[in-house]
Amino acid sequence: MWTYRAPVADMRFLIEGVLDAPAAWAATPAFDGLDADTAQQVLEQAARFAEDVLAPTNAGGDVAGCRWSPEGVSTPPGFAAAYRSFVDGGWPALACAPEAGGQGLPQLLNAALYEMLTAANHAWTMYPGLLHGAYEVLLHHAVPALRERYLEKVATGQWLATMNLTEPQAGSDLGLVRTRAELAEGSVAANGAPVCITGQKIFISGGDHDLTDNIVHLVLCRLPDAPPGTKGLSLAIAPKWLPDGTRNGIRCDGIEKKMGIKGSATCQMRFEQAQGWLVGEPNRGLAAMFRMMNSARLHVGMQGVGHLEAATQNAWRYAEDRLQMRAAARPEGAPRAAADPIAWHPAMRRVLYTLQARTDACRLLAYQTALWLDDAEQHPDTAHRQAAADAVALLTPVAKALFTELGHRSADEALQVWGGYGFVHDYGIEQTVRDSRIALIYEGTNEIQAIDLMVRKTLDDGGQRATALRHRLASTLPAPGLHALSDAAHHQLNRWSEVEQAVVEGSAHDAEWPLRAADDFLMGVGHALMAWAWARIDWALTAGSHHPHRHHHHPALPAGARPAQAWQATARFGVQWLLPQADVHWQRASALALALPAATLAAVG
Amino acid sequence: MWTYRAPVADMRFLIEGVLDAPAAWAATPAFDGLDADTAQQVLEQAARFAEDVLAPTNAGGDVAGCRWSPEGVSTPPGFAAAYRSFVDGGWPALACAPEAGGQGLPQLLNAALYEMLTAANHAWTMYPGLLHGAYEVLLHHAVPALRERYLEKVATGQWLATMNLTEPQAGSDLGLVRTRAELAEGSVAANGAPVCITGQKIFISGGDHDLTDNIVHLVLCRLPDAPPGTKGLSLAIAPKWLPDGTRNGIRCDGIEKKMGIKGSATCQMRFEQAQGWLVGEPNRGLAAMFRMMNSARLHVGMQGVGHLEAATQNAWRYAEDRLQMRAAARPEGAPRAAADPIAWHPAMRRVLYTLQARTDACRLLAYQTALWLDDAEQHPDTAHRQAAADAVALLTPVAKALFTELGHRSADEALQVWGGYGFVHDYGIEQTVRDSRIALIYEGTNEIQAIDLMVRKTLDDGGQRATALRHRLASTLPAPGLHALSDAAHHQLNRWSEVEQAVVEGSAHDAEWPLRAADDFLMGVGHALMAWAWARIDWALTAGSHHPHRHHHHPALPAGARPAQAWQATARFGVQWLLPQADVHWQRASALALALPAATLAAVG
Repeated sequence: MWTYRAPVADMRFLIEGVLDAPAAWAATPAFDGLDADTAQQVLEQAARFAEDVLAPTNAGGDVAGCRWSPEGVSTPPGFAAAYRSFVDGGWPALACAPEAGGQGLPQLLNAALYEMLTAANHAWTMYPGLLHGAYEVLLHHAVPALRERYLEKVATGQWLATMNLTEPQAGSDLGLVRTRAELAEGSVAANGAPVCITGQKIFISGGDHDLTDNIVHLVLCRLPDAPPGTKGLSLAIAPKWLPDGTRNGIRCDGIEKKMGIKGSATCQMRFEQAQGWLVGEPNRGLAAMFRMMNSARLHVGMQGVGHLEAATQNAWRYAEDRLQMRAAARPEGAPRAAADPIAWHPAMRRVLYTLQARTDACRLLAYQTALWLDDAEQHPDTAHRQAAADAVALLTPVAKALFTELGHRSADEALQVWGGYGFVHDYGIEQTVRDSRIALIYEGTNEIQAIDLMVRKTLDDGGQRATALRHRLASTLPAPGLHALSDAAHHQLNRWSEVEQAVVEGSAHDAEWPLRAADDFLMGVGHALMAWAWARIDWALTAGSHHPHRHHHHPALPAGARPAQAWQATARFGVQWLLPQADVHWQRASALALALPAATLAAVG
Repeated sequence: MWTYRAPVADMRFLIEGVLDAPAAWAATPAFDGLDADTAQQVLEQAARFAEDVLAPTNAGGDVAGCRWSPEGVSTPPGFAAAYRSFVDGGWPALACAPEAGGQGLPQLLNAALYEMLTAANHAWTMYPGLLHGAYEVLLHHAVPALRERYLEKVATGQWLATMNLTEPQAGSDLGLVRTRAELAEGSVAANGAPVCITGQKIFISGGDHDLTDNIVHLVLCRLPDAPPGTKGLSLAIAPKWLPDGTRNGIRCDGIEKKMGIKGSATCQMRFEQAQGWLVGEPNRGLAAMFRMMNSARLHVGMQGVGHLEAATQNAWRYAEDRLQMRAAARPEGAPRAAADPIAWHPAMRRVLYTLQARTDACRLLAYQTALWLDDAEQHPDTAHRQAAADAVALLTPVAKALFTELGHRSADEALQVWGGYGFVHDYGIEQTVRDSRIALIYEGTNEIQAIDLMVRKTLDDGGQRATALRHRLASTLPAPGLHALSDAAHHQLNRWSEVEQAVVEGSAHDAEWPLRAADDFLMGVGHALMAWAWARIDWALTAGSHHPHRHHHHPALPAGARPAQAWQATARFGVQWLLPQADVHWQRASALALALPAATLAAVG
């Protein structure tokens, strides 16, 4: 039956053997004392929590769901106990600064933690999922009095946090937000000013629940006389319980009946003269909120990786157990039997290797992004920090959209391995299909991510940031001609550059072109990045390694990791079977002739 | 909110304007008296039933699901009343012979009917879904006494029928079926012989319910001393209630909790010394069952078309209503507003045209297949019947796998149009995503269909059947050089031929190759067929039409159909945006070097 075993040894191979993160930590004073052994201990403790505490609550949480009453929301059985254990273990504070009660560990380890949590129970992981983002908003934008009151509570997870953006008429278009914030009499609009909040918010994850004594809401709202659109949005903090112990004017009017993550309370929230305080400057709320959203976007990307892993490992196990029909090609010495494991049949091997290749590539990309995020935040050198921040800015929308798309699609393809059993709730995979679907939508739909990559991260600076990233990626690969998989990756990096150039030039005389090309462009970039990941993995394991950075050291696989030939067969499969898809995306993104018909051409009844 | 309106005028354009089915009916004595007007009436009455009676039970059926007790299964509220109305309207008997109480109408109209039923309520449609297949099995394989007892009851839908194949250890591999059939003392193994059936069956759709007084089970079983594997399988009929009014030894032990089609009872069945009678010769049960399965496979393909239509029309409606952000390109004269319909945004237009292009192509292909099925069954000329039967045999696995894959994937892509609302049950699309998923699995998984196409329908006769079909398809298109979309279709038909040739030759020295190539080969063929469909649609509407068969008649669009420019823009979009995907499939199917790694390479924990 459905289980989740955190692949710690595989994770460590990528972290240590491919990315050599311990060397980066050694060069970063903020990570003083962190080495591979300590990181291993953190990962193994996280694995224990995910496997032993969290995974057992997953199927039951889906069946029970959340319950709403006018008094508040109850989470499924076991969720509150798991959350107490999570707080007691210090997990919420993993990557927060020691000054704020945190452990000061890298984002990379936090990313690996959240990958495990989602794989074990996505719905539960929604509750602590916004903690780090809220911590960052408060750390960077709140006035000292508010930081004093809320920062440590949030960093340690004693109080959970929410992000209140969406309203019925304002989803992807936050400029349409109407929730009002009125200044208390006599106070002036400034960071930290007290405000009275009135409005309705929907789709608020964890808007109410029974996991913590208090809930801290970060609310996008509009001051009186604010300009229309996104330039008139402010951010305020409003707790469920006020400092004087009275209940604030914040109610949960109901929760949504959803396709998946049923253990996560998706709340309709009503703010009625709720007491709050501005966080950040008036009318600059979106910039502050974007800090939270960027953190949340990489976090959502990790959800995709978690679903990929959960689907992949369960599909392998089932395919090795289930016997149906004799295979055309059987391993030498296999005993003759009426039926062979379905893992031996080509149609199933194709699915299994597809899942594994995506999992390996997306995980390496995710960890690389997190490693650069640590550089951006903690590296002692300013130029180094800026270059890393640029890389992360560009990679974040790709990570969010690519990983969630592949996480959901792979779960759906994995379901086929179970045949009819896959459609039955007891076998677990159909829950993964349903749970994983939301990640393509929230924290900015994948279409919004594609526009972000195209317009804000590529066209805005004429492709400079992208060029720098491609050079950076290419520099970690052997030069062309030495290694087949790296050659495929170099080719993809070049295609990326060519298509980008075509879009930059074309956008001058066809303003809509970049928007028509955006989705395919993102998937093309995603495939180029996966090609880079497969090449890196294969190269790191190539015998007599010409590893570009560590000539004297052949990276050993940690004990318990999949064998080298499994990694390499998977990487080759990725390049041979999955990478051809890139051509379709590049072709559609670059072919100027491919005008999309207008919506008005197609009248429907 | 979610609604379904049967697109009768669009269906009629394909049936009359593109396929010219009325001309085929006029040439078929069995359809004497059937003309376009009569067909239109049938379609419009079917639409009334689907829209007014069935669609209103869809969302409620998903919430309520079926209920099991030791006494039997209850279907959701409204299902039984809808079924009575369906029987009273004569719909079960639509394509059955008048001698058996049927209306003798074409399979083509029956296909359109079932497309509408699935779009309106897939779960409900499962109950009558096997009637026609059971009718065919009885008609062609049962002895007269059994035909006398059951044929008309089944044809008219007074008694519903089931197909009992799967057992816990025998899913795709029916050779592993263990259910025993013992001959009554003194009787000899022969068609019609009484047998005593004992065994367990799972995943039996409609194995028990409260819609009809009796249920007729067709059961795959094994006589004593039968050879092992599929050559030892027999088929028996066993009713829930015996002719003498006593209850047979057939019990429903429980129903599955499933991802979707929750209103359809998926039953665990126990046969304990159940009284039955052989249908067809002993040990030839699979051949008889295949008649039922072939009918069921085209039927399942129609489910894919139904889901495509339901997702597409609801997505268009929502996208035209929902306002978010200003569009980069706005129709001339559009009033200035804070936000435009999301249908105007490129990312949404891309999804909407993708859905529409797949819907148009799959529907035309489905109707063409059904038209040839009518030829195969009813055409007065033997050679004509055989040629049509060959075409249908090849098209059936493609129709099943392609339409269901695109039906489900399109529903999943459509969900994105609703954003967060799409994940909420009330908006309907998430139910379509869940309901549509099963169609990729049952009646032979899509992987089994791919092997059927490759091995049984292509390699078995060295590609002769396929060559004939390609010639037939090409002959309905203008010659190369006259019409851009037809040129694209000709090119795809040639690619199909080339790749087929490569597989035929390659299979001589690599026995596993056809199996590794099968899934991509089917999708390549599917894209070639869609290219043909887009070309046919566009050509039928081209001004001053050079329509190959009807030089003097420009096919008019029926009143209420989408305008010509909408059809043509969609067809062009299909060729420009979707057809490039064919290259990836052809490339993977034909590249001998693309060996799949062995399953045993990848050890997992």
